[in-house]
Amino acid sequence: MSNDSHFEGWVGHDKECLGNMKWESFQPKQWRETDVEIKIECCGVCASDLHTARSGWGPTRYPCVVGHEIVGTVARVGKEVSGFKIGDRVGVGAQSDSCKSCSACKAGQEPWCENGIVGTYNGDYKKTDGSGFSMGGYAKYSRVPAHFAVHIPDGLPSTVAAPMMCGGVTVYNPLKSNGCGQEGFKRVGVVGIGGLGHFALIFAKALGAEKITAISHTHSKEELARKLGATDFIASADQKPYAAHKRSLDLLIVTNNNADMPIADYLTLVRPHGKVVAVGIPEEPCMPTPILQMAFTGVFMGGSAIGGPKIIREMLELAAKQNLKPMIEERDMKDANQVVNDMEEGKPRFRYVMVNKDYEPVQAEARI
Amino acid sequence: MSNDSHFEGWVGHDKECLGNMKWESFQPKQWRETDVEIKIECCGVCASDLHTARSGWGPTRYPCVVGHEIVGTVARVGKEVSGFKIGDRVGVGAQSDSCKSCSACKAGQEPWCENGIVGTYNGDYKKTDGSGFSMGGYAKYSRVPAHFAVHIPDGLPSTVAAPMMCGGVTVYNPLKSNGCGQEGFKRVGVVGIGGLGHFALIFAKALGAEKITAISHTHSKEELARKLGATDFIASADQKPYAAHKRSLDLLIVTNNNADMPIADYLTLVRPHGKVVAVGIPEEPCMPTPILQMAFTGVFMGGSAIGGPKIIREMLELAAKQNLKPMIEERDMKDANQVVNDMEEGKPRFRYVMVNKDYEPVQAEARI
Repeated sequence: MSNDSHFEGWVGHDKECLGNMKWESFQPKQWRETDVEIKIECCGVCASDLHTARSGWGPTRYPCVVGHEIVGTVARVGKEVSGFKIGDRVGVGAQSDSCKSCSACKAGQEPWCENGIVGTYNGDYKKTDGSGFSMGGYAKYSRVPAHFAVHIPDGLPSTVAAPMMCGGVTVYNPLKSNGCGQEGFKRVGVVGIGGLGHFALIFAKALGAEKITAISHTHSKEELARKLGATDFIASADQKPYAAHKRSLDLLIVTNNNADMPIADYLTLVRPHGKVVAVGIPEEPCMPTPILQMAFTGVFMGGSAIGGPKIIREMLELAAKQNLKPMIEERDMKDANQVVNDMEEGKPRFRYVMVNKDYEPVQAEARI
Repeated sequence: MSNDSHFEGWVGHDKECLGNMKWESFQPKQWRETDVEIKIECCGVCASDLHTARSGWGPTRYPCVVGHEIVGTVARVGKEVSGFKIGDRVGVGAQSDSCKSCSACKAGQEPWCENGIVGTYNGDYKKTDGSGFSMGGYAKYSRVPAHFAVHIPDGLPSTVAAPMMCGGVTVYNPLKSNGCGQEGFKRVGVVGIGGLGHFALIFAKALGAEKITAISHTHSKEELARKLGATDFIASADQKPYAAHKRSLDLLIVTNNNADMPIADYLTLVRPHGKVVAVGIPEEPCMPTPILQMAFTGVFMGGSAIGGPKIIREMLELAAKQNLKPMIEERDMKDANQVVNDMEEGKPRFRYVMVNKDYEPVQAEARI
């Protein structure tokens, strides 16, 4: 059971906190009657957690609890909330608030809210419900506006759903919204076969792509990529790796986040009027874009950012229906410091999910 | 009447030739039975002419005759040509050959030919019909592969059609192919109110855009822009010029060619999943692209390059049907050196069209 004013979790106190988080009580956002509280079964480990914990994307507010791939059961429901009851299995991703009234929010594109978004950790609710600061899911409980909670479909394991809440939807959204699998978008490429890239291969196949080209540095992940759905493979360290694949794709998802990626080469892989979508966010704010190459290839470039509750719901339903199997490694939430260190070293194949081993779901009849 | 081996026109002999072209005979491409020969009535003056004449986009092959907005009458028809007869009024744009067999060519996207394109001047036919080098339209006659000649609809003045062959289609193509005027793409912006930009305003309106925002440095062109179809105007030199126009557009055509244009600001003007298309080609091969801004706006960026014969035909038919009136200034072909100097100084409002004053159309019954 949660305490109204203090939760327990892994707290970071400064930018050196990675590997040195403390298990202790912390102040969640203030309760609002539009919120739900989630007893956390598990939480995926996302690269953003590390960036934020070390103030890598600008100064983080400490104390801080990271984690935004949260799955658990509803433990408390605000009086103004409809659609959730105690005991429901739900998840929350990287966004936990927005204005909910602008045209983007109304269109189910909350990550592009005109008034800015509140992240599930290191976020400030001052522009929305004024309830303080957001704290993430490396914890026992999470409290979030119900608008951003999503039911987990029956049959989809919690540890499978968790890493989809951010990592999964980060690639599912640009695949789906750019027509993956539809006529004219059946040939899809994926650059980078890591956590995001492996989801991209799985979802591209699930959405009906017929040709799926995985692009990695060497051939070491080729067999794995083919198991996940790739029909073609390019090792960028090979001689002239792209020449035989010119214009072979309709859509290319780039999961690298190096600002020096060979974007001009990537453009050659896509047909005129096709698209390259970068989902990794480099530390450098700008990257050089070959404008001539864009004109001569006719390819469009864009970025993408997570996905709203509606598209998360759709993704989870597809995953349940097709019994999709991402590659995850379960870790004990107790070992969070070791887990983030292992993540930093690039060890996961492909996503870590930390599990509260003493978790018991909240029963539907329970009242707090 | 043309001479089989020599035409007459304005010949440039070196990169200092602007303002110093010589009227003399020159060697056109070798005749092929897939060609037509055009007696030139008029030729528009395009910025590309100047770039090429001074070797601004890499070394130009001299002697060189520029000009690729050509309109005149068919004076000779190859035996293998169908669809054209002597006396037909036709035009040719910036492209005069391609492989015609790749998927791009077959789709009517010849400017994106997989095997490269042959420009109407400073081009080499070695990969297509092996007929030598292309020479442009500052001349009495032009000889080009018939595939790239397009009939001019009755009622459309030659001097109106000429600058559309390159300048017009450079903006018409990205407007049309990105859905201008269709549901979800009724709000269109145009950056830069010069030769290309003025065409973009005219065509955006003709294609059914309901909100058309012109963006220029100062208010000096505001009245003019509104006459051409603009419903809104932004002067970028004003204080916080873009703040009130955030996400107000579905599609933005950028006709600037400065590599230091404020692309991050332009992205804020467009809704998520909208598009920014740059049609100017900066001299610098790369420009810095704000990748974070692309992710946070959800806007796609692309380039575009002229348009194939099919889309030129469609544009001319629209122009004839709606009696479109671009702003052109007729100049005498005899004054070509003065004309290019005036062009260099940015004097045209908005396109110069040079006319062969002694031109008589080839009559349908004539045989050469």
